[in-house]
Amino acid sequence: MNTIDQLLANNRTFADPLADRHLDVEPSRRLAIVTCMDSRLDVFAALGLGDGEAHVLRNAGGVVSDDVIRSLAISQRRLGTREIMLIHHTDCGMEKISDEGFRVELEEATGILPEFPIQSFESVDDSVRLSLDRVRRSPFIPHREAVRGFVYDVDTHRLREVEGAD
Amino acid sequence: MNTIDQLLANNRTFADPLADRHLDVEPSRRLAIVTCMDSRLDVFAALGLGDGEAHVLRNAGGVVSDDVIRSLAISQRRLGTREIMLIHHTDCGMEKISDEGFRVELEEATGILPEFPIQSFESVDDSVRLSLDRVRRSPFIPHREAVRGFVYDVDTHRLREVEGAD
Repeated sequence: MNTIDQLLANNRTFADPLADRHLDVEPSRRLAIVTCMDSRLDVFAALGLGDGEAHVLRNAGGVVSDDVIRSLAISQRRLGTREIMLIHHTDCGMEKISDEGFRVELEEATGILPEFPIQSFESVDDSVRLSLDRVRRSPFIPHREAVRGFVYDVDTHRLREVEGAD
Repeated sequence: MNTIDQLLANNRTFADPLADRHLDVEPSRRLAIVTCMDSRLDVFAALGLGDGEAHVLRNAGGVVSDDVIRSLAISQRRLGTREIMLIHHTDCGMEKISDEGFRVELEEATGILPEFPIQSFESVDDSVRLSLDRVRRSPFIPHREAVRGFVYDVDTHRLREVEGAD
């Protein structure tokens, strides 16, 4: 069985005992979490998060892109969230590329220069601060009082709050 | 204890038995999953996914935005993934807004018209097809042979493959 079909079989096993349990579309903890796509970050397990409690936004790096601003605007303005938790992590793939190097690689492979920013970073702490700053400066996000930034250590599995981020 | 502090306490309980377990940055199943930020979608649990197996990308709607293209390009070109699974879901907040309505709301609230597309949708099946099409047309994503699209039902908790999506 290939990977996706195996996951579909897993899903049937998961679904059966839950049938007809309905939760509301608005997250009960009124929280949105922005983090990296990294495969080692099972956000629900790592934070003891329950179903229906928080929005979870993920991309390469966990950076606050325009798409994250869009999603947070919808999360707060239409779905009632009020707090934001940003989580970047150690050993991130985005530390191992450079914006210029990856842009050139894409252009050489495709003949097209991408219009989107690559958003690599050298320091994960600085990257958290930059993302916090982007959230705090965005007028599209109405509630910016309770925004905190963290680094998840993929070896100790613990979160560390980024200092100077308040 | 407030929400974020409670999640940090949960994280310490989670982390202790795992200390020093290190997994590789490259996902072992060579899979990337793109889905919605919806709080009812615990992707790891719902698919029986293990730590370190797949990249997980999430935004409002699970739509294939430029930021998702960026993330998938990095996932495939630098971190070895080869398959893509798109998962939208029933009862999505993005079905309950319109692009024009939400743009006007943002402009009225902030005085600024957002430059990013809102990406609401009326039909979740059509939205999956549009996202599949965006992946398949993007030259920045080198491996587009194994891309499949699904709808997660938030009541039955089951995945349904979108027909006509191949």
